[in-house]
Amino acid sequence: MSCFCMPHMEFVHPSNFSTSSPISRGLSPWKRGTCTCIAKRSVETVSSTTRVPRNVNIEKLQNGYLFPEIGMRQLGHMQKYPDAKLISLGIGDTTQPIPDVVTSAMAENSQALSTIKGYTGYGAEQGNRALRNAIAGEFYRDLGIKETEIFVSDGAQSDIARLQMLLGSSVTIAVQDPSFPGYIDTSIIMGQTGNFEKHTGKYGNIEYMKCEPDNSFFPELSTVSRTDVIFFCSPNNPTGYATSREQLKQLVDFAKKNGSIIVYDSAYATYISDDSPRSIFEIPGAREVAIEISSFSKFAGFTGVRLGWTVVPEELTFSNGFPVIEDFNRIVCTCFNGASSIAQAGGLACLSPEGYKAICHVINFYKENAEIMYETLSSLGLEIYGGKNAPYIWVHFPGWKSWDIFSEILEKAHIITIPGTGFGPGGEEFIRISSFAHRECILEASKRLKNLFS
Amino acid sequence: MSCFCMPHMEFVHPSNFSTSSPISRGLSPWKRGTCTCIAKRSVETVSSTTRVPRNVNIEKLQNGYLFPEIGMRQLGHMQKYPDAKLISLGIGDTTQPIPDVVTSAMAENSQALSTIKGYTGYGAEQGNRALRNAIAGEFYRDLGIKETEIFVSDGAQSDIARLQMLLGSSVTIAVQDPSFPGYIDTSIIMGQTGNFEKHTGKYGNIEYMKCEPDNSFFPELSTVSRTDVIFFCSPNNPTGYATSREQLKQLVDFAKKNGSIIVYDSAYATYISDDSPRSIFEIPGAREVAIEISSFSKFAGFTGVRLGWTVVPEELTFSNGFPVIEDFNRIVCTCFNGASSIAQAGGLACLSPEGYKAICHVINFYKENAEIMYETLSSLGLEIYGGKNAPYIWVHFPGWKSWDIFSEILEKAHIITIPGTGFGPGGEEFIRISSFAHRECILEASKRLKNLFS
Repeated sequence: MSCFCMPHMEFVHPSNFSTSSPISRGLSPWKRGTCTCIAKRSVETVSSTTRVPRNVNIEKLQNGYLFPEIGMRQLGHMQKYPDAKLISLGIGDTTQPIPDVVTSAMAENSQALSTIKGYTGYGAEQGNRALRNAIAGEFYRDLGIKETEIFVSDGAQSDIARLQMLLGSSVTIAVQDPSFPGYIDTSIIMGQTGNFEKHTGKYGNIEYMKCEPDNSFFPELSTVSRTDVIFFCSPNNPTGYATSREQLKQLVDFAKKNGSIIVYDSAYATYISDDSPRSIFEIPGAREVAIEISSFSKFAGFTGVRLGWTVVPEELTFSNGFPVIEDFNRIVCTCFNGASSIAQAGGLACLSPEGYKAICHVINFYKENAEIMYETLSSLGLEIYGGKNAPYIWVHFPGWKSWDIFSEILEKAHIITIPGTGFGPGGEEFIRISSFAHRECILEASKRLKNLFS
Repeated sequence: MSCFCMPHMEFVHPSNFSTSSPISRGLSPWKRGTCTCIAKRSVETVSSTTRVPRNVNIEKLQNGYLFPEIGMRQLGHMQKYPDAKLISLGIGDTTQPIPDVVTSAMAENSQALSTIKGYTGYGAEQGNRALRNAIAGEFYRDLGIKETEIFVSDGAQSDIARLQMLLGSSVTIAVQDPSFPGYIDTSIIMGQTGNFEKHTGKYGNIEYMKCEPDNSFFPELSTVSRTDVIFFCSPNNPTGYATSREQLKQLVDFAKKNGSIIVYDSAYATYISDDSPRSIFEIPGAREVAIEISSFSKFAGFTGVRLGWTVVPEELTFSNGFPVIEDFNRIVCTCFNGASSIAQAGGLACLSPEGYKAICHVINFYKENAEIMYETLSSLGLEIYGGKNAPYIWVHFPGWKSWDIFSEILEKAHIITIPGTGFGPGGEEFIRISSFAHRECILEASKRLKNLFS
């Protein structure tokens, strides 16, 4: 095991994908060859192109996708400095082993599938009852969430897409700026947005709710336009800010007043140290306005195992009074066939007393990482946020372009971070540093950053 | 282990879901209470309903979903005959254990996640390279399919939904009638269709390609209107018919002529006994018109493990020349985060020489089941199809309503089948019998059917 990031598939995978198609992008073969003497060839060309229109919504997605671009820069850096020991504090990917009590449960479940007694086929699309029960008991104790309101998924990213299929193309959305790009990208794909506007770095018909140090990373709601849906992530990725109880109450009231649905992403809730709410359902009245998505990825290191869940309360209804839960159930049954039974067995083990204790130990390890990094950056007089209730530290470099800071740190300290604008225009002047790394990477990175900034 | 189907969650799960929401379905609370003296209560009611419109496309989906209805009838039957030993030959769910070589690989992979060396986080969204390579080598040898054209998924059902997100709302589709309901249901959800027409049992704006004994279960293409997309499943679920090479050539030519994209579902390809094509890419020119979806579910008993794949050839382009593979890659990276690493390890083991041999042994077992059932029904003089190249037998009862045949067999033989109309109006007069059952269930069911029909 090395703490250094080598050029392997997993980190650069989105950029690693390319096709060698000979067909020019965006150029219609129908428009080629006006000379009749090449009619035969022209026919051949025509026959190789279908008459199916490209989805206009996907066409709106910008090419400059964050991780491919970072991957390309990383590759360029490694070509320039072949001996440099690169450290990745970029993508929020877990690195610590999963506790044995959990992996043993998955191994046992796997092995049992080779026996007549232990074999299981299709499970319920909504997830195994025992797991739904355990999630309700562990994360929503005393919050009135029923097992039947919990839908087990293969991860929050897939469920965000399924929620967008549920909502359809005619809704409007709001997002925190900055935020995880998945909310906006799936919204574009579903046709809810306008085009990308280069001068603002925003898509039309999306309400960007600025979250910055000046407003304590909570939007000034009096200036926010009404939308049908509000995506809201706390602790936030990338800022690491956990919304306070008072702020979340304001958000719920705002949604109620506007008749909006909040899609609340609590994927990092188990990193909260203070008494900030871990679930939106801690706020009275949230059952009538909120859906919550969450995940085992950062909680239990299940980024590769794939397991998450979504809570849809029975009281949440569309404008015609129809329960959202019924339509979401239909989406889950039609567009998904349940999470892997093995991953679900692992999830259940995570929520056993022994499993939960072991998982918390790993979370504390990452939190110690965050603390080390926080102290380092703090001692250098940098303006830093997050890190206390989240595995991410959000560093402000006033007056700088975030890609320039990224490049500076990569060039001089051989450390990969994430430029803030990857999370929206509100991320300009910031970078995100992840604490999901081996301890020696964190310590070495601290040393290098001290050399760079002191 | 018993061969008898007890009232457990898994079979009836879609119907087992219900909400106890007090809100009347489809009745807008805004329209309640015209008397001003109940203004306060009215306000309360209003506050519990959002202003988010219900997705008009989901509203089009018919309530009478197949499996809930079957589940309800099963439940009613068991209440009526509490001592009856019910046999399920309904839902196509695998029942045989997965070979040890495969489950051991998954167990090892699970266990390794608790070690520093064996831990892995996010994998490539498109799937692990080794698995993509193995799929290309095993299923597409000599067909020119590259590893990079294969996208590993958590199952065909999820990928059908993702393909619909790729295609968007403005395309038109054709389906075999009868066929797996997922193609149509996802099409409705995406807004590609008109409303349900009760008198025809069809949705508007979908081309239903009748597949029946009279046309050798292959549509009369000269009467089929052009659509952007053609969903085509072979061996077909439910008819069990494997399209011949000559027929498939006709389909590819038809798609080429019309500039259509074929979405070819080969989930049952490994059940083919004769020389019918196992992949559409066996047909020259298919790379320019076809996507293929497939699955480990029925191949390797992975219905609970969840693993599948989709092939998108580089040559397939939209009307503007843009490669479909690039947009599908974007969908996979945005709306999915890869299949479980454990399931992928299992998939890889299925494609090892030892694994493949063991898997084929299980497939042969199900094929023997199909043969037993085929011989039984044949000896009774019934008009039967499928079963030779597929795990399903399609039984024709001329002049009967399919739900009536279903009820008759349930009532008198205590056997669950699937009424043909569950797969489209073209399934009227038919039932589907699954051979995915324990041997003693098949033998007992044979006996009962002989008693019933002889």
